[in-house]
Amino acid sequence: MAGVQSSEASHPFIPTDLILPDYVPIILSQSTILGVYGCASLLVVSFVWILAGRFPKISKLEKVLMCWWVFTGLTHMILEGYFVFTPEFFKQTSPTYLAEVWKEYSKGDSRYVGRDSAVVAIEGITAVLEGPACILAAYAIGARKSYSHILQIAIALGQLYGTAVYFITSVLEGDNFAASPFYYYAYYIVANSFWVWIPSLIVIRSWKKICAAVGVQEQKKTKRR
Amino acid sequence: MAGVQSSEASHPFIPTDLILPDYVPIILSQSTILGVYGCASLLVVSFVWILAGRFPKISKLEKVLMCWWVFTGLTHMILEGYFVFTPEFFKQTSPTYLAEVWKEYSKGDSRYVGRDSAVVAIEGITAVLEGPACILAAYAIGARKSYSHILQIAIALGQLYGTAVYFITSVLEGDNFAASPFYYYAYYIVANSFWVWIPSLIVIRSWKKICAAVGVQEQKKTKRR
Repeated sequence: MAGVQSSEASHPFIPTDLILPDYVPIILSQSTILGVYGCASLLVVSFVWILAGRFPKISKLEKVLMCWWVFTGLTHMILEGYFVFTPEFFKQTSPTYLAEVWKEYSKGDSRYVGRDSAVVAIEGITAVLEGPACILAAYAIGARKSYSHILQIAIALGQLYGTAVYFITSVLEGDNFAASPFYYYAYYIVANSFWVWIPSLIVIRSWKKICAAVGVQEQKKTKRR
Repeated sequence: MAGVQSSEASHPFIPTDLILPDYVPIILSQSTILGVYGCASLLVVSFVWILAGRFPKISKLEKVLMCWWVFTGLTHMILEGYFVFTPEFFKQTSPTYLAEVWKEYSKGDSRYVGRDSAVVAIEGITAVLEGPACILAAYAIGARKSYSHILQIAIALGQLYGTAVYFITSVLEGDNFAASPFYYYAYYIVANSFWVWIPSLIVIRSWKKICAAVGVQEQKKTKRR
């Protein structure tokens, strides 16, 4: 508010000269924040697993993939969507759970609370375009749609591209946004790594399936000639 | 150099408070810079068109696509690759043609000469990964490889993702990086738009081809059961 002098509140983020007027400290503990996310995810995955079983002739791997797509889709839409559309989340005087999540994650990468434009751009694309597409991918696997593999590749490549820009911009800006080595490795490196190796495996699998299908198609055309 | 006082040279870019020590003004005229790029591109396209004709049973559209992939691939590798790996291009006392290109383009978006980290990250991915992949895509079309369509989609989506981050970060940072409305529209909007509508058309075309091939494959599987 105009006129209030104590706008430069202290905060736990690095770099320490990051200016966050009206910052409200985290209330929830780390274990509560992670516990709620873990339990909610477990509930979602269990629900999708049961639902997926009702699709005919579905393999175990396809059920796992459906669980992943719904989990990552909801994470994109709810968690990342909240971040994108709530620029002042760190100022809330009675913070919601989602605000607490992003204040906690910012200990691993203060560009979130500092609203770095590259981070906001990537999260915007992820939340608005990729989130809903993930849910569609889960449905496409179950319903055996012909666009299932190409949709999965499109989203997974988007996740990989986003993560690449996320890490490269950080390195270019000095890679000094974590409150401690623990947060650097736990939040910034380990948590994000899931969105590197899982999309990579999905791209490889679906790429092979598409090449096989197109290859058969091409062979038939050649024979006909 | 240390000790030299006149480091804050005047420059034609916006915002005017952008600090570019040792900036060397553009020597080449706009028509020379654009003319060389245009002629070189025309040469490349003509060469690829003739070469493409030697592949058996190639359609006109496929020849056009091969020309596009080689043109965009060389642009990514040579022009954008130069930008990525020559951070001090604007300081060269006897500037190369490529340095002049980027000083000229920076009139439309000063984040290039100012080395915005999002721009460098996107250009890095484009030059190093997408550039060579574009050349492979041109070959894959001619040689009728089974990965032709999926590779084209992968690169085109990468180009679209990069362009999206490029425009979104600009808007988030105030969209005030052009020296004049002419440069804003000619360089920033019109020139970049080719990497929006062409990749979009390619994604749509190859997406349909893949869905058709996978659909046929799925139908056969269902029949066999």
